[in-house]
Amino acid sequence: MSGHVVALCGGVGGAKLAHGLSLALAAEPDSLSIIVNTGDDFQHLGLSISPDLDSVMYALAGLADPVKGWGRRDETWRFMTALRELGGESWFQLGDADLAVHVERSWRLAQGASLTEVTAHLCRALGIGARVLPMSDDPVRTRVLTPEGWLDFQDYFVRRQCQPTVREFMFSGVETARAQPDALAALQRADLRAIVICPSNPFVSVEPILAVRGIRAAIQQSKAPVLAVTPIIGGKAIKGPAAKMLTELGLNVSAAGVARRYVGLIDAFVVDQSDPAPEPVPDVTFVSAATLMSSVDDRLWLARAVLRAADTFVA
Amino acid sequence: MSGHVVALCGGVGGAKLAHGLSLALAAEPDSLSIIVNTGDDFQHLGLSISPDLDSVMYALAGLADPVKGWGRRDETWRFMTALRELGGESWFQLGDADLAVHVERSWRLAQGASLTEVTAHLCRALGIGARVLPMSDDPVRTRVLTPEGWLDFQDYFVRRQCQPTVREFMFSGVETARAQPDALAALQRADLRAIVICPSNPFVSVEPILAVRGIRAAIQQSKAPVLAVTPIIGGKAIKGPAAKMLTELGLNVSAAGVARRYVGLIDAFVVDQSDPAPEPVPDVTFVSAATLMSSVDDRLWLARAVLRAADTFVA
Repeated sequence: MSGHVVALCGGVGGAKLAHGLSLALAAEPDSLSIIVNTGDDFQHLGLSISPDLDSVMYALAGLADPVKGWGRRDETWRFMTALRELGGESWFQLGDADLAVHVERSWRLAQGASLTEVTAHLCRALGIGARVLPMSDDPVRTRVLTPEGWLDFQDYFVRRQCQPTVREFMFSGVETARAQPDALAALQRADLRAIVICPSNPFVSVEPILAVRGIRAAIQQSKAPVLAVTPIIGGKAIKGPAAKMLTELGLNVSAAGVARRYVGLIDAFVVDQSDPAPEPVPDVTFVSAATLMSSVDDRLWLARAVLRAADTFVA
Repeated sequence: MSGHVVALCGGVGGAKLAHGLSLALAAEPDSLSIIVNTGDDFQHLGLSISPDLDSVMYALAGLADPVKGWGRRDETWRFMTALRELGGESWFQLGDADLAVHVERSWRLAQGASLTEVTAHLCRALGIGARVLPMSDDPVRTRVLTPEGWLDFQDYFVRRQCQPTVREFMFSGVETARAQPDALAALQRADLRAIVICPSNPFVSVEPILAVRGIRAAIQQSKAPVLAVTPIIGGKAIKGPAAKMLTELGLNVSAAGVARRYVGLIDAFVVDQSDPAPEPVPDVTFVSAATLMSSVDDRLWLARAVLRAADTFVA
């Protein structure tokens, strides 16, 4: 089966499946476009930090830390130690090698390059064949409503370790942000084989992408099958605050609970093979697969299972 | 002998004597003000880098690399390696720990702090008692006229490794730069014990400081003895391009050659004890001392010798 594949993804879990897809499609690297959430991008110590773009890049380049789930493998922390000694802000961890990406990105952005151009440059330098695209070159910033008021995403996510209860999300700037043109064009391709929503947090990884003008409509209008992969297994998030957020918003902490967020958008939802069959969700076909990605092989197998499921929809 | 001591200095050699003075005056840390050249400050990768301020801070904090003569001891280079892998500019070496100073300084400057305030903060964090003052909070940028035209200082000094022949120097911005107020006030103190021009490059370390409005006049008007220490021993610069510059400008590569730059400004010039007595220079008394600072003890001994010589002028 040939044709173009578009993946939508956020951080670590999404990056793993994006990596799996890049391996599954390695024979034709340019048959994969990965649209990445930039809602948790932020400015820190004067640096432009794009955590989800970095997670995807590091996963695809084989540079991701396999244990921590964020940052780079074999990272060192001398910068952070020295920064702490200087009384600098140390709530956000910046590894010595990771910092090179932030400094180079910030510098190129300050020189007038777009986030798309900077990302393309970094991906080329890291030998990544797939097209990694920010959802928008315009700033969109996820904010979280908590009992303490609205918090910036990284303030909630890293500094506060997701402890405050979430009530609502907003994607500041999304009303005026333009979808990244190549991302939109990829979703509108006639030869589209599948659109894959990776196992990322629905609220703060996927929905910021869907909120960018034109993206949700392009997915709905696409003739290609649209599949999402569960970030919830056995009623728990594999990583991150998805389960906590579902609970706090009064939703079911289950694959079906996530699938319901995508009604009207997806054709199929991939649940973990260890989970019982979910209660039905309107217009959503459930597919079962091994969704836990503990190894690089797991990523490839899941990607192949997702593509196989997509191809059956076309048939 | 009590009273305030002011040191003028640039990079490595100057920083060593500044350190010696801070040790000699350790009982009263606030009796020492160190006015530091900022003419070789520059912007690199979006960071505000102040090489001479850093050399002084690292020397005084005991953090300086004892072998390389610049940067921090026990430094690691993972950031640079990663930056090179990304195709980033790698002609200026940024160590992982050193980078913390550049990021913290850049961030604080971007928030509106002055270079003086940032320097004071960094010195406090590093446990430095002496007052380390930039010559000005306004940007002054040393440029070097070569057969290829005017080069920015770091372009000449680091990227081109001082290879082009120098014809002339300019300190861009110095016409409008205001002297750092505490630096000027220190030079005007009634209880001034000595003004010490450290063994720094006369052209690109000391003369930028002297070129800042008010500084040369304050030194000339001071009743305190003014002493300079030679950066040339046995017709060679201990470090850096001072000897090469003297030659290229048609001047004598000798202690006297440097002393002549300071005629009308200094009372005494400290030459190395291994050098023969220099030819006379008008109004300059030559003093002989061990000026090569190979160890921390050497720094302290030289500082004591300089202060002793200063005190004889008062007596």
